[in-house]
Amino acid sequence: MSAGSPAEAATGDGALLRAMLDAEAALPRAQAEIGEVPRRAAEAVTKAAGLDGFDARGLALRAGAGGNPVIPLVADLRAAVSELSPGDGEFVHRGAASQDILDTALMLVAARTLDLIAVDLAATAASLATLADRHRTTVMAARTLTQHAVPTTFGLKAAGWRALVLDAHDRVVRVRATLPVQLGGAAGTLAAFEADGTAGEELVSAYAAELGLCAPQLPWHVLRTPVADLAGALAFCAGALGKVAADVLVLSRTEVGEVAEGTGGGSSSMPHKNNPVRSVLLASAARQVPALASVLYASMAAEDERPPGAWHAEWSPLREALRLCGGAARGAAVLCGELSVFPARMRGNLARGELAGSAGCVGAAEGMVARALERGVSGLPGH
Amino acid sequence: MSAGSPAEAATGDGALLRAMLDAEAALPRAQAEIGEVPRRAAEAVTKAAGLDGFDARGLALRAGAGGNPVIPLVADLRAAVSELSPGDGEFVHRGAASQDILDTALMLVAARTLDLIAVDLAATAASLATLADRHRTTVMAARTLTQHAVPTTFGLKAAGWRALVLDAHDRVVRVRATLPVQLGGAAGTLAAFEADGTAGEELVSAYAAELGLCAPQLPWHVLRTPVADLAGALAFCAGALGKVAADVLVLSRTEVGEVAEGTGGGSSSMPHKNNPVRSVLLASAARQVPALASVLYASMAAEDERPPGAWHAEWSPLREALRLCGGAARGAAVLCGELSVFPARMRGNLARGELAGSAGCVGAAEGMVARALERGVSGLPGH
Amino acid sequence: MSAGSPAEAATGDGALLRAMLDAEAALPRAQAEIGEVPRRAAEAVTKAAGLDGFDARGLALRAGAGGNPVIPLVADLRAAVSELSPGDGEFVHRGAASQDILDTALMLVAARTLDLIAVDLAATAASLATLADRHRTTVMAARTLTQHAVPTTFGLKAAGWRALVLDAHDRVVRVRATLPVQLGGAAGTLAAFEADGTAGEELVSAYAAELGLCAPQLPWHVLRTPVADLAGALAFCAGALGKVAADVLVLSRTEVGEVAEGTGGGSSSMPHKNNPVRSVLLASAARQVPALASVLYASMAAEDERPPGAWHAEWSPLREALRLCGGAARGAAVLCGELSVFPARMRGNLARGELAGSAGCVGAAEGMVARALERGVSGLPGH
Amino acid sequence: MSAGSPAEAATGDGALLRAMLDAEAALPRAQAEIGEVPRRAAEAVTKAAGLDGFDARGLALRAGAGGNPVIPLVADLRAAVSELSPGDGEFVHRGAASQDILDTALMLVAARTLDLIAVDLAATAASLATLADRHRTTVMAARTLTQHAVPTTFGLKAAGWRALVLDAHDRVVRVRATLPVQLGGAAGTLAAFEADGTAGEELVSAYAAELGLCAPQLPWHVLRTPVADLAGALAFCAGALGKVAADVLVLSRTEVGEVAEGTGGGSSSMPHKNNPVRSVLLASAARQVPALASVLYASMAAEDERPPGAWHAEWSPLREALRLCGGAARGAAVLCGELSVFPARMRGNLARGELAGSAGCVGAAEGMVARALERGVSGLPGH
Repeated sequence: MSAGSPAEAATGDGALLRAMLDAEAALPRAQAEIGEVPRRAAEAVTKAAGLDGFDARGLALRAGAGGNPVIPLVADLRAAVSELSPGDGEFVHRGAASQDILDTALMLVAARTLDLIAVDLAATAASLATLADRHRTTVMAARTLTQHAVPTTFGLKAAGWRALVLDAHDRVVRVRATLPVQLGGAAGTLAAFEADGTAGEELVSAYAAELGLCAPQLPWHVLRTPVADLAGALAFCAGALGKVAADVLVLSRTEVGEVAEGTGGGSSSMPHKNNPVRSVLLASAARQVPALASVLYASMAAEDERPPGAWHAEWSPLREALRLCGGAARGAAVLCGELSVFPARMRGNLARGELAGSAGCVGAAEGMVARALERGVSGLPGH
Repeated sequence: MSAGSPAEAATGDGALLRAMLDAEAALPRAQAEIGEVPRRAAEAVTKAAGLDGFDARGLALRAGAGGNPVIPLVADLRAAVSELSPGDGEFVHRGAASQDILDTALMLVAARTLDLIAVDLAATAASLATLADRHRTTVMAARTLTQHAVPTTFGLKAAGWRALVLDAHDRVVRVRATLPVQLGGAAGTLAAFEADGTAGEELVSAYAAELGLCAPQLPWHVLRTPVADLAGALAFCAGALGKVAADVLVLSRTEVGEVAEGTGGGSSSMPHKNNPVRSVLLASAARQVPALASVLYASMAAEDERPPGAWHAEWSPLREALRLCGGAARGAAVLCGELSVFPARMRGNLARGELAGSAGCVGAAEGMVARALERGVSGLPGH
Repeated sequence: MSAGSPAEAATGDGALLRAMLDAEAALPRAQAEIGEVPRRAAEAVTKAAGLDGFDARGLALRAGAGGNPVIPLVADLRAAVSELSPGDGEFVHRGAASQDILDTALMLVAARTLDLIAVDLAATAASLATLADRHRTTVMAARTLTQHAVPTTFGLKAAGWRALVLDAHDRVVRVRATLPVQLGGAAGTLAAFEADGTAGEELVSAYAAELGLCAPQLPWHVLRTPVADLAGALAFCAGALGKVAADVLVLSRTEVGEVAEGTGGGSSSMPHKNNPVRSVLLASAARQVPALASVLYASMAAEDERPPGAWHAEWSPLREALRLCGGAARGAAVLCGELSVFPARMRGNLARGELAGSAGCVGAAEGMVARALERGVSGLPGH
Repeated sequence: MSAGSPAEAATGDGALLRAMLDAEAALPRAQAEIGEVPRRAAEAVTKAAGLDGFDARGLALRAGAGGNPVIPLVADLRAAVSELSPGDGEFVHRGAASQDILDTALMLVAARTLDLIAVDLAATAASLATLADRHRTTVMAARTLTQHAVPTTFGLKAAGWRALVLDAHDRVVRVRATLPVQLGGAAGTLAAFEADGTAGEELVSAYAAELGLCAPQLPWHVLRTPVADLAGALAFCAGALGKVAADVLVLSRTEVGEVAEGTGGGSSSMPHKNNPVRSVLLASAARQVPALASVLYASMAAEDERPPGAWHAEWSPLREALRLCGGAARGAAVLCGELSVFPARMRGNLARGELAGSAGCVGAAEGMVARALERGVSGLPGH
């Protein structure tokens, strides 16, 4: 349902291929930075990696034998470099393990998608601030266990949504700022780079600088902190948006009618219907991402210096969780920007219930909204 | 890692589009069968639906507004039918809900993928029968909690794998034989069909017959037995193959060396390595499918006549679970067909452990293998 | 929330201890049956195992070192037998592995809990048949994506719930009828039994007969078909009941008010409220059991003849899933037996929506209900 | 398997009852602090809540009707207070919702368990620092996809484990420092407290101060950030310890024999065996906690001011995840404190593989270990 969204593009096969090429090209540039590779060769690899001719589908097909797509990609890239700059093909992927490239590429994909998500969460929070402020005295029924309980305000509800969206934003921004490159060589000892006379630590820093990611203290081939932290941030994000959706879905019900999505969706059999399709998109993501995150957390328990399965089990859930959260964040930004609120209906529902006499008793709601709105959107560190 | 596998093709966007077109085309044929639609129109729809020009990507992009791809597909198909047979476009999708078509298409995709899986599981079981029979007296160390325990035989281990693979085959075949069409109209009452004067039950039967699926007793828009049963069968299948992989991975370890995948995978940094890549593929699937199945089971708790999220949350996990099981079943068939077994190494390992003196005591192993091999592969009902 | 339910008792520490004692006592009886153990000793073990003095808590505490509670239990049981019948302590646990006893005990716990669940599901189905029949012409709004769609009947909804509950009943009864004893000895070869001169197969059959469970073709220490099948049946059961709850929760909403739980729950802060607490219980179970089932399915991929973790990871999720389903089935039986339905409110809601004019068009609903009610409750094989 | 562990006690029924009593007692004290309740009454409630006579089991049984155990607890506490100080029973639970007390109690349980976990993780990290330092030049085979790859050092492996354990420690400490009290009244508006003339914000701060928890900006009845953050921290913790266990299990294998748990476990059928039981405990937790966390993340999508099921579905998974992580952290502290390492065996295995000639090439391993060991254990904020 998120087809065509920026997050779909940012997590698709083409985006991963682009990220792998970026990861390959940055390595010789970093090696040139510390004097291990000729600048000419680094430039040739960068130029070749920037070409359009690489074929995600073909690489996937050729990945079968080795279990990952880096092996055929390196072969293609070497050929392309050699054509541009004869003899420089050898500088492609020098000292690197497949996992160095694929992990780095996945972190690039994650970083790029999280940047999109952060923007959409901030926009969502801004719209919710407007709603919370506008409706800080709009009284409505609080509902507990499906029943009218005591009165509350729609402003307090929107302020609560915003608090959760800001919490999600904080977590997304925090993990995005820590995403590292991967560089360890075959067994995470940097032996292949040291054998070239390179001080490994210096190289890792240069590599990180080239790609705008962090330099990890240790290779994390089997120390999956970045992936686990992504899992947590994405599951949180999906859940936070799922809360907004859950409420909009209740309040949109025909009998309740207190809010409506600005532009609902159609129906093939009932053209008159105005379905809350963005809430459906959010609710759907909230049902899927926690399970995908559970796969990622479970993959932490990975034996050896590279595990037989746990790493491979991360690729699809990670990209799918990013895609779902990206689509949900985009949907939430639109949903909250366009949400129609019907205060008269809120009053009417309240009056028909048993709470009619207590409509004025909304406690500290207004003050809480005011204080909650003082909280700002945290920035991306360094932005 | 299963790129290019038949299961990948069977679960891809193109396959789902094909299945949706098949589902749309079968409906007017079924309606023609019971006299509600002119045969000419049914033929025109079938012919139009068989054309190649439909664009999965474009439909996905246009699906956004309505939340599912059936709405734009129906528009395209009506246009194509009208071109072939002016005036017959109206017979496309008559009385159906989007969910009727999408659920039916997903069942077709499931059925076609399960058929591939069943073949591969049967081939896997056949190879394992050969291994079990050949090695019924090949003594090796049984290992419990990572330690040598008492002796067993490789034949018993292979017979155990086979029993589990046959159990998976049974479950796959059983659920495949029950997969139903969906046909209920907007709210599952068949009202749109009855309004046409059609006896709904008769139409559902005709529709099922057209597609080689079952006729459900009730529309199952929110009675998700078929999806839940698929979840269980696929999680079982992934787990069964994961058991085989878990053992092959242990026995392939450099220090153990009792088996080897016939043709291992390469390494970008260590070309000499012979990696157990098929076992890795199986292990990776076994880590993912249970979580995907949990999403499908959780989607059973779907409110109303069509739920806002639970149904939409099924699409991706179901196809992904089918794809993963399909790739794993294919991998298992190759793995078990080519597995190298090293009885001398088994004896050697046993002799070096504390169990040296007990090598002859393998209890009832041989008899159990013989009896286990008497069990056959169950057939597809009606095949 | 299911404290005090029969299922809680059936899955508690005391019930597991009882089942382990039953499993230990049945083994010498089976061995006596085939002439390997004196009847006198078998009777002494059975008598000792029937005593009340065993302490679940103490066994759990002493389980630490060996990783499971069977080791201290065997010590206690031997002591108790020796006191009753000096010299016969040696016949306790003869040839068995800890896993033989614990797996068999877990199957007994599962069987006993599934029997309770099956009764409650059958009672639930019976109540739903009454509701479906009574309301086969009670028109109400069908709701899709939270919006009024077209009319349906409450009878069709109740018939759908019943179909799902019967599907759950079928799966529970089917898996219950296949639950096996475990008997394989240290490595699943039956070596310890064969060394005693016992024909293993005969012993397994006798053991199964003693306990009312099935005789497996192979020891299933690492062939976890029974546990995986339980996972599927329990996740299905929770999901089926979750569907009923999801609908009752919507229809109970203050604004909808079309049904009410017969006897709702109280509130510490709002004594007037009538909360749908049984539906909450069902909904809560439906959110938990799929994830627990995913752990059980994932544990199929268990290496070696006994795995270091996968088996241990089954104990808690299996008992918890049984407990949750048992509580939910009990709750469902009460809920469906006492549900209040308000046809006038259904008509009123329908009249206020856009569907007012179409109230008579409920398609094939009545016929479908009639046919659906012809389906009976499947029996326990052999009952 | 964690029976008798401090974490088991800290998460058991008795501990939750104690925490609920603490939460009830702190409320009138906080209300007295701001002058809303007589100090005499606050003291009477505190004294009554400190009595031993409350019965966790009985409360659970009586919880059925209302769906949670707070309602009967309040009744019992009021009776106990009235006995001590006639007329003061009315000051029990004044203005609070059941969820205020239960959520606050769960946060107390979480805080107390996380404190235990943090201590054990710190102890684990300290032991691992010793191992990493001692073995910084102990060469061993790196293993990738089960095969010997290139050499590494055990010191680098232990330093990697430590880095992951410190990451877990950081996350546990971070979330522990943010755990809030819950106080919102029936609908999270603080209306019941404001109606008493109380400034809600001031009361919340006083309540938090009484309990050593944080004061939330908004009531979080349906803004489940604290629970989601706990889910992430616990899943991370289980995964980090699961990585250590996964490696110990491989290296403990009979054929590998490079490490051994200091004091292994017994076997009921093979008394000679030395099983890696603590690693098994850790591995088992790592298989369960991610799925439990997925339930907690999924519960974020909770409708209304109190949801019908999502909240109730948190109680058991949260306590179970705490219990499992607590047991695993305790096990890890013992495991890493007692681990036997066999460098000669490491050299021997390396020499027998294809890597014999490359034993000196461990790249930057030693320097990486040295730098990694510079990282310290982060403190609890304010400790």
